[in-house]
Amino acid sequence: MYLFRWNLNDLSKPFRKRNYSTNIGNILDIFQNAKLGQEINIKGWVKSLRKQKERVFLDLSDGSTWKKLQIVLPHNKSCEKLTTGASVNISGIVKSSPNGQIELNATELEVYGECVIADGYPFAPRKQYSQEYIRQYPHLRFRTNNFASLIRTRSAATLAIHNYLDSEGYINVHTPIITSNDCEGAGEVFKVIPENKELLKSMVKEGESLEEAFFETKAFLTVSGQLQLESAAHGLSKVYTFGPTFRAENSRSRLHLSEFYMLEAEVAFLENLEDLMVIIEKLLKNVTKTLLDKCETDINNNQENKSNFKWLDQKFPIVTYDEAIGILKSNQNYFESGYEPEEGISKEHELFLVKYCGNVPLFLVNWPKDIKPFYMKEDPMDSTKVLALDLLVPGIGEIIGGSLRENDCEKIKRSHPHITSQLDWYLELRKFGSVPTGGFGLGFERYLLFLTGTQNIKDVIPFPRWPHNCNM
Amino acid sequence: MYLFRWNLNDLSKPFRKRNYSTNIGNILDIFQNAKLGQEINIKGWVKSLRKQKERVFLDLSDGSTWKKLQIVLPHNKSCEKLTTGASVNISGIVKSSPNGQIELNATELEVYGECVIADGYPFAPRKQYSQEYIRQYPHLRFRTNNFASLIRTRSAATLAIHNYLDSEGYINVHTPIITSNDCEGAGEVFKVIPENKELLKSMVKEGESLEEAFFETKAFLTVSGQLQLESAAHGLSKVYTFGPTFRAENSRSRLHLSEFYMLEAEVAFLENLEDLMVIIEKLLKNVTKTLLDKCETDINNNQENKSNFKWLDQKFPIVTYDEAIGILKSNQNYFESGYEPEEGISKEHELFLVKYCGNVPLFLVNWPKDIKPFYMKEDPMDSTKVLALDLLVPGIGEIIGGSLRENDCEKIKRSHPHITSQLDWYLELRKFGSVPTGGFGLGFERYLLFLTGTQNIKDVIPFPRWPHNCNM
Repeated sequence: MYLFRWNLNDLSKPFRKRNYSTNIGNILDIFQNAKLGQEINIKGWVKSLRKQKERVFLDLSDGSTWKKLQIVLPHNKSCEKLTTGASVNISGIVKSSPNGQIELNATELEVYGECVIADGYPFAPRKQYSQEYIRQYPHLRFRTNNFASLIRTRSAATLAIHNYLDSEGYINVHTPIITSNDCEGAGEVFKVIPENKELLKSMVKEGESLEEAFFETKAFLTVSGQLQLESAAHGLSKVYTFGPTFRAENSRSRLHLSEFYMLEAEVAFLENLEDLMVIIEKLLKNVTKTLLDKCETDINNNQENKSNFKWLDQKFPIVTYDEAIGILKSNQNYFESGYEPEEGISKEHELFLVKYCGNVPLFLVNWPKDIKPFYMKEDPMDSTKVLALDLLVPGIGEIIGGSLRENDCEKIKRSHPHITSQLDWYLELRKFGSVPTGGFGLGFERYLLFLTGTQNIKDVIPFPRWPHNCNM
Repeated sequence: MYLFRWNLNDLSKPFRKRNYSTNIGNILDIFQNAKLGQEINIKGWVKSLRKQKERVFLDLSDGSTWKKLQIVLPHNKSCEKLTTGASVNISGIVKSSPNGQIELNATELEVYGECVIADGYPFAPRKQYSQEYIRQYPHLRFRTNNFASLIRTRSAATLAIHNYLDSEGYINVHTPIITSNDCEGAGEVFKVIPENKELLKSMVKEGESLEEAFFETKAFLTVSGQLQLESAAHGLSKVYTFGPTFRAENSRSRLHLSEFYMLEAEVAFLENLEDLMVIIEKLLKNVTKTLLDKCETDINNNQENKSNFKWLDQKFPIVTYDEAIGILKSNQNYFESGYEPEEGISKEHELFLVKYCGNVPLFLVNWPKDIKPFYMKEDPMDSTKVLALDLLVPGIGEIIGGSLRENDCEKIKRSHPHITSQLDWYLELRKFGSVPTGGFGLGFERYLLFLTGTQNIKDVIPFPRWPHNCNM
């Protein structure tokens, strides 16, 4: 029996029930579990097509794995309409191909939807496209091999992070997206206002601006959940948040997005920077090992720039800010315009330092107080410094920033006299049952670049937002 | 040796290293793994205190579990300053208390931070506070038993959902927070604009308003990730997103928030509503069973309203919209002002229907087309209906909405001629390799209310946002 049907059927009636010997779910299942001779049903999109006289060979993908399933079917007239990109429902028998791979001999094929290049489908068969080109089609790029692979890796990385932190006793605390604080104080925030003016007018109180009417305060998109997370750590001890954060900067580099994900963790009873470094190093190594195991094919196929993972077996070197400046100064010939300590540490300098220190992730610690935010703990050995760290990685530079937190209210007020009354609650954490705390934030997309060797941050997030771009 | 120290020490130096026989991490560890006679170190906050002549009994919490660890220490003069809410670092020997519980005989105690009620700490020892009162202190409520317990349950529920969906082959696709679409078309959206006017002026193009300058389009906070998720399902087959969504409504009920979490899943090759109901029922039962196992103490201690979980062993009943209207009409005496079919189904009616059908979760299917969004699939047996479902649960009403999606472009355009050109990409999903799809959205906080018997949605989210409230 060989059945060929075109176009979507009436979907109101339960789809014709078939009886198969197993409940094979997707193509990944077939590669892992299917047995030769087994009759199975599978659905997906045609990735490529080779028509021979007698038979048609078709590579099928359903997004569950990097690998495509080869389907063999008889070549008859109706195959003319079968094209790359079409969606199909196939039943058949599992066979072994001449090269020893699993393949499916189709006994039944139904096309759900055709895909006609001439109608404007942007991906022609057997053509390679640049990432820039593919990025123009955010709604269709999930069907491309490379992007699908990156999104599977991103999904696995998200899960690995959640499970690792759970195993270490961390509690996931969803910090808010809408906030009345600007944590970093840098002013690069988006404000949030109801679109409906009538609603605002009905809510506004005397002396308030319309912008403040809904929440009775100006409201922004979060730039970091850290401050709120600190309040949770004062009670739950080990907490984290993992979600989107925002920057209203006109920056269009390959490393910046207007909306990006951060993993932020906060640990109570943390008393020195060394312990924080141990936590970070353990997290990165553990999650990466899990991913190299779970997503091996996706990671290996995706690397534009094959990274090596030698760092998994090495201890991350630690360099102080002052030492780093010394290194840069004594290597100033390396930089086109030389180097003066006043320049601080730019992206170019970060990348140099990483190479200089063995091309593995590098902790840069004890930063100047005046270039860091108010919440960082003053170094008791040197009041011009804070007990802060950045983690720099090969090819990317900074992917993590962290510090111990200042828990002396008076010190915060003295060094930041203009601290807003909106942060009274933050000072109260230090007034009642204060504890030493510390934490860090990991730029998730930058970690994915590092993990997969991808060049542009817009290719490791499903729906990138950047200046002049908010598609879909 | 008994050491009593006051105030935070100089934290710059690595904290005095102690050697303990195991690496007990927190109080949960102690209850699960500590052995009698073992010397351990533990840190936390004093929950309550009983001072006797010779000894002081102290209940300690570190947020890792509902249970408190009883500490016994000698009563000396310095104990006067030891109060509820203070943070302490304690070493001691694990003993068995007279009632057979694990307790710790302290040998060393250090106070990190005092907690003085008279200075404004809002929670006095041994006093019960209402949830409304506690909610006024969002930065301190993590230290209260009930709220900490709900947040641990929320964290575990988040993880259980991720792991369950992973085991079912779903890929986590982070849909965007900032979007140019208004998915539901209801207009209750927040708009997003950079705070910095100078930045906007530097970016604006001719003919654009300042509001559009940053993204070259008006930008909003998402009300649902569904449409984007559909594009991901057209390539990855089974996808979900789990994150915050937003409504700019002036609604202050116990079931509404301006920022709340939704789990949304989208499944390609889904051809009938029955299959969608199986997916939903399996998810809810599986996740709930995992949580009853993992968070037993937290869930049992938190239920203001002890829910029963009989529904875990029952099949959810299914009622059509028309049947539901019939039930309401023939029970109109139950409602104060009677019932007319034109009223549709309000919250009161939802709760009645759930009771009427056995007080277990109830699927309400086949909704009138004219009260549902454009993307729902028309019922081929009745063009006035769509193949949509709501799941109603006892005490809450709707917690899930879902449907098959219309994949006939022409039908969408005919019934919604004003569909915006910004949704051309959505129609293209149906033009190239179209497949039958369906999906649903679960209101995560409403599920948590149902799971824990909590009454107010503001108590199951760490930082609730609602009209006139955006604390922290």
